[in-house]
Amino acid sequence: MPTSRPRTILASAAAIALAAGAASADIAEYMDFFEPLPALPPIPADNSLTPEKIELGKMLFFEPRISASGVISCATCHNPALGWADRIPRATGHDGQVGERNTPTVLNSGFLEAQFWDGREPDLEGQALGPIEAEIEMNMTLEEAIARLNEFEIYREHFAAAFPDDPDPINPQNVAHAIASFERTLNTPNSPLDRFLVGDVQAMTDQQVEGMKLFVDAGCVACHNGPALTDSNFHRFELPGSTDEGRFVVTGDEADMFAFRTPTLRNVAVTYPYFNNGSVAELHEAVQLMGQQMLGQDFEEDELDALVAFMHALTGDMPKIEIPALP
Amino acid sequence: MPTSRPRTILASAAAIALAAGAASADIAEYMDFFEPLPALPPIPADNSLTPEKIELGKMLFFEPRISASGVISCATCHNPALGWADRIPRATGHDGQVGERNTPTVLNSGFLEAQFWDGREPDLEGQALGPIEAEIEMNMTLEEAIARLNEFEIYREHFAAAFPDDPDPINPQNVAHAIASFERTLNTPNSPLDRFLVGDVQAMTDQQVEGMKLFVDAGCVACHNGPALTDSNFHRFELPGSTDEGRFVVTGDEADMFAFRTPTLRNVAVTYPYFNNGSVAELHEAVQLMGQQMLGQDFEEDELDALVAFMHALTGDMPKIEIPALP
Repeated sequence: MPTSRPRTILASAAAIALAAGAASADIAEYMDFFEPLPALPPIPADNSLTPEKIELGKMLFFEPRISASGVISCATCHNPALGWADRIPRATGHDGQVGERNTPTVLNSGFLEAQFWDGREPDLEGQALGPIEAEIEMNMTLEEAIARLNEFEIYREHFAAAFPDDPDPINPQNVAHAIASFERTLNTPNSPLDRFLVGDVQAMTDQQVEGMKLFVDAGCVACHNGPALTDSNFHRFELPGSTDEGRFVVTGDEADMFAFRTPTLRNVAVTYPYFNNGSVAELHEAVQLMGQQMLGQDFEEDELDALVAFMHALTGDMPKIEIPALP
Repeated sequence: MPTSRPRTILASAAAIALAAGAASADIAEYMDFFEPLPALPPIPADNSLTPEKIELGKMLFFEPRISASGVISCATCHNPALGWADRIPRATGHDGQVGERNTPTVLNSGFLEAQFWDGREPDLEGQALGPIEAEIEMNMTLEEAIARLNEFEIYREHFAAAFPDDPDPINPQNVAHAIASFERTLNTPNSPLDRFLVGDVQAMTDQQVEGMKLFVDAGCVACHNGPALTDSNFHRFELPGSTDEGRFVVTGDEADMFAFRTPTLRNVAVTYPYFNNGSVAELHEAVQLMGQQMLGQDFEEDELDALVAFMHALTGDMPKIEIPALP
């Protein structure tokens, strides 16, 4: 009967809508575990984010003359060409000395609530001066660094503009505040996951969606959550071959032995190699090891592939930074 | 008489025009010694300049993994933030080793007809591989560098695109050709001198114009001429404290003892410190020393000031380079 056809079509449409609704509800539950990267991380009350500080911070980030050799800057290890890290196992600094730990990326680091692998500083302001003074990194006292910056008229102008209420603005605290301000702008929005979360269902492949579900179901999301996919907390992890005592070095608390801060997973595909000593080069192996150590689970090959595919969905737009002309 | 006024005005105008004409003729004679920077330097017949080579060359220029430490790239010493040089006396390379000579800027280096302080290579293709292999610079054999590049799918694609007729495109010659191609784009047009030469008479200050005249009259222009203000030739220069034998090391010819290639004066104000060992930090002192050594002339203070002012008129627009994302 001709009259039945519209009804059949309507019924089919309803069935499809119902099925789609069920699938959406299913995926929506998983999506609830994630959040798109905000445009900016939280800004501390005592370091408002201003264009003047960002500009000055950018200059300081690229400034090698606050290192003893005159050739090492923040950008040497946190290299913008290499995911704002260095893609070597352990950081190489002053006179070619090799440190104990892998360089973490600066990208999205404003979203982290603990800085350094051992969380010995709570924020970017606290982190910024460490590598300048470290003997195996830039190897310069802050006193010397301040004296060098003071030699340049252009730095005197920029510090005065960035800290207008400070009668003597070239000082370590302001160096830290300016660098931290610049770093808070180094975020990577629009990853496939971010686009997926705001409704672009084509932004992730089916395999990446499978990886996302497994990431939740297997329990990875217990530690890797929040906008930067880290809880900024410390978890014991015994990396084969590593003797690094991790968080214990900071707290002296036995419970912190071999504990490291959960790293962000944003841009994990372009911030290899992995773990505190950078000893694992491949993401596939890193995910496998995490499953074994943290979840007591040996993922199947297809599961590993899906999880790695999902990791690739966490690579966002790199900040477009023009190298500043220094004085 | 009222009727005389127009004539007086006309006469005055004519006098002014005459005076201006005379002055212009005068300045025009000086201007003949200089030429605005062309958009591009000469391109060698065997290395055509293509967008693919420029892009690949940029990646290689910023690539630290063709160094033994994994942290030193061309851009370490030829730092875009520091006038594409390093602003330290002598280059610091692998394991903090300090070389014998000051890092020359890459800016406008395509206009030079001899590369390195001693001119041991005639062109940028010849220059490009030297620092990779030098033990005190990047300290990597070309064989190893090629092997490392070959590991990356993205490099394999870029080399194939840049050298489509080459069945095995990742090789030392192509690395050199790509880097040289990128470097030929690193030019600095629109300096005050360039704008002055094309008719913008306000582009240089009166003092800079005085400096330009003195630069010609005193004879500086005998060696510092052509688009990059260098004859690309070798001249004996005994820098106090330097034992560097210069060009003699290359030729073994006694006439070349202590001879160095005339450096470009373009961007000289932002490519301090000066001379083969970078021992002179101030432009004022550098000009004074040049006057004494090369021209047997002790410039007066006001002459030095004018010459230094003219040097500042040689700073052009820096290339706008976005740091490439490396694989």
